[in-house]
This record gives sequence, C-alpha cells and structure tokens, in this order.
Amino acid sequence: MTEHLINHIRQYCDVEEEKLGLFKSFFEKRTYRKKDMLLTEGQRCHEKFFIVRGCVHLYYLKQNGIEQTTDFAMENWWTSDFMAFQTGSSSQFSIRAIENTDVLCITSENQRKLLNNIPELNAYFHLIFQRAYAASQVRFRLLYEFSKEELYRDFIQHFPGFVQRIPQYLLASFLGFTPEYLSEIRKKYLS
Amino acid sequence: MTEHLINHIRQYCDVEEEKLGLFKSFFEKRTYRKKDMLLTEGQRCHEKFFIVRGCVHLYYLKQNGIEQTTDFAMENWWTSDFMAFQTGSSSQFSIRAIENTDVLCITSENQRKLLNNIPELNAYFHLIFQRAYAASQVRFRLLYEFSKEELYRDFIQHFPGFVQRIPQYLLASFLGFTPEYLSEIRKKYLS
Repeated sequence: MTEHLINHIRQYCDVEEEKLGLFKSFFEKRTYRKKDMLLTEGQRCHEKFFIVRGCVHLYYLKQNGIEQTTDFAMENWWTSDFMAFQTGSSSQFSIRAIENTDVLCITSENQRKLLNNIPELNAYFHLIFQRAYAASQVRFRLLYEFSKEELYRDFIQHFPGFVQRIPQYLLASFLGFTPEYLSEIRKKYLS
Repeated sequence: MTEHLINHIRQYCDVEEEKLGLFKSFFEKRTYRKKDMLLTEGQRCHEKFFIVRGCVHLYYLKQNGIEQTTDFAMENWWTSDFMAFQTGSSSQFSIRAIENTDVLCITSENQRKLLNNIPELNAYFHLIFQRAYAASQVRFRLLYEFSKEELYRDFIQHFPGFVQRIPQYLLASFLGFTPEYLSEIRKKYLS
C-alpha cells in the first residue's frame, strides 16, 4: 500500500529512493469495512488518513441529531479533521467508510518524526494543502453563486466518479437537499 | 517589511538566520492605497501576497454584476487565488485593498527559486496551508449549521478585529445578507 502513496508523492516532489524506504515504519496500514468509523466526533484526532482504496464521508451531528455530510474523500486523497489534527483539540467531525476502504494512517507524532527524517516531504504537503485550500476557495464561490440545482450539475460534471459510488442520501445531504428533491433532479437529468 | 514575515515564519519552523538573509531578493514590497486592486478576476495570477499592514477583500463578479465578497485577509495572512497561482490559470477572484495596505509579494517563479534555496520554508507553507484548509473545513460546517444571524454572531466573536475595520456592506456581502438586514441585526446586538 505504501507504493501507492510513494507514487502520489512523486507527482509533486523529488525524494530519494532510499529515503522512501524509511517510509513504512511511520505509517499504519488499516482496512475498514463499509460503515466502519475512521474518526468519531468529540474524540481527540491524532491521525490523518491517505486513502489507498475506497471512499469515505466526513460529517457532523446536527443539533437535531441528523448527520450532515460536509465532504467526501476517495483514492489519493488525504482526509482528517485537520484543525483537530494540527492543534490536538477534539474532533468536530466524524469520518465513516462508504465502501471497504484501505488507508495509510499516520499520527501527528509519527508525522513529526517522518518530516524530521525526510524534510523534503514538506514540499509535498505544502502543494497538497495549497491545492486543497484552493479547492475550498472555489467551493465557497460556488456556494455563493449557484442554485441547488446548479450545485448538483456542477458536482456530477466535476466528480463523476463520486456520483457512481456514494449513496444518494449522502449526496443529498452534502448538497443541502432532501433526498426527495435530489431524486426529482436526477430524473430530470436522466430523462 | 521582510522582518515581519520572518517573525511569522519563526513561529512555525526553524530556518538559519543567514539563509533568511537571502529572503529579500525574492519578494517585492508593495504599498496599495485604499481601493487599489491587488488582483483582477480574469487575469493570470502569478503572485501571492503576505499582508504586512492593512486589510483586503477577495471577491468575484456575480452574473448580475454585483460584487460578492467571499473572504477577507489582514496582517500576517497570505492571500491570492491559490488555484490560479498553483496551476497558472486565469483568476476567478479579484482582491482589493480595504485600507492602505503594505504587502510582500512573491511570484510563482520566485517562490520556486526561494524554495530551492531554502527548502525548509516548505515546512512553514505546509503548516500555513494545512491550517487554512482546516479553517475552511470549520467554515463549511458553520455554513451548513448556522442561521444567518448565528453566522454574524460567530463572526463578531471570532474576528472582532475585522468587524471594526471592514465596511458594513462588505461584511453583509460576505455573510450573504442585504446591508439592511445586517443593520437590523447590529442594532439588536448593540441595544
């Protein structure tokens, strides 16, 4: 599984082959079954996850007890509650596997050691997080600009891979729809 | 002005004093007057900005021609259209000074050279962007969860410095209010 991450890193920065050999000792390989929890809201969040295979959703519990999905992640994405990861505070989000999911997991303590050993990896994380933040800037723009129907159209256009894999009720939650409204829009686009 | 940035960097990572001496040659100091443009939507965005003094807003033009503010930045914040900066594409946002503003500006080409010379700075940018992305995760949660009035209350609680400095019509735009609605809410909280 670490090969998968190493290939991803190589797209962003150069690290010597022998240094990457150190790699495995800092990561834990984990397999989650569909519906298993990677992270639970309210717990300390010491880990971040690189998804090798599978798909997860990030959500929080609304005051009315309903789960609100705020994000998804699939192969080659990093996911976590990054505020909790960076500051050591309690998590404001839960993460659950939507499919059987293989991840490489690293604790904040192990990441500190890894970056001490291979500081070149900071270049990788710099670009990964700059890109993630950049995508957030675009998403905020869409949230201001688009109607709900336009948000759906934009999502299926830019993330066709997700639409096939995630349950419709989670997509509805993410887009701020009722499942019924999503179902209506889907029929319109399929017809 | 570079002292300001160096102090900021030192909060996040260790870089040798003599290396930071190289620094100045990669940055351009600029002073913008209130209402000057740092970046204009549709142009190539080759630069990112570290704000030494002052305050700016990030916005785009809606289809009806109205400016929609999506973010602010003040002292010690980096700002840009980071997708355009990273990919070299045209900017989807404009940035305008709200006050007389001093920045340190770096081009993507100069950043590449700077990071070649001082790769330790990747550790700084890694943490800066992880934090920025983490703040986005929290902001998405607030957008799903809070009513408009709660968004206002949260904003004045977490960013009291901004509330004093930014014009009310920009704050209203950012929060998705009409200026009249913001004015009503403010009266309620002041009374």
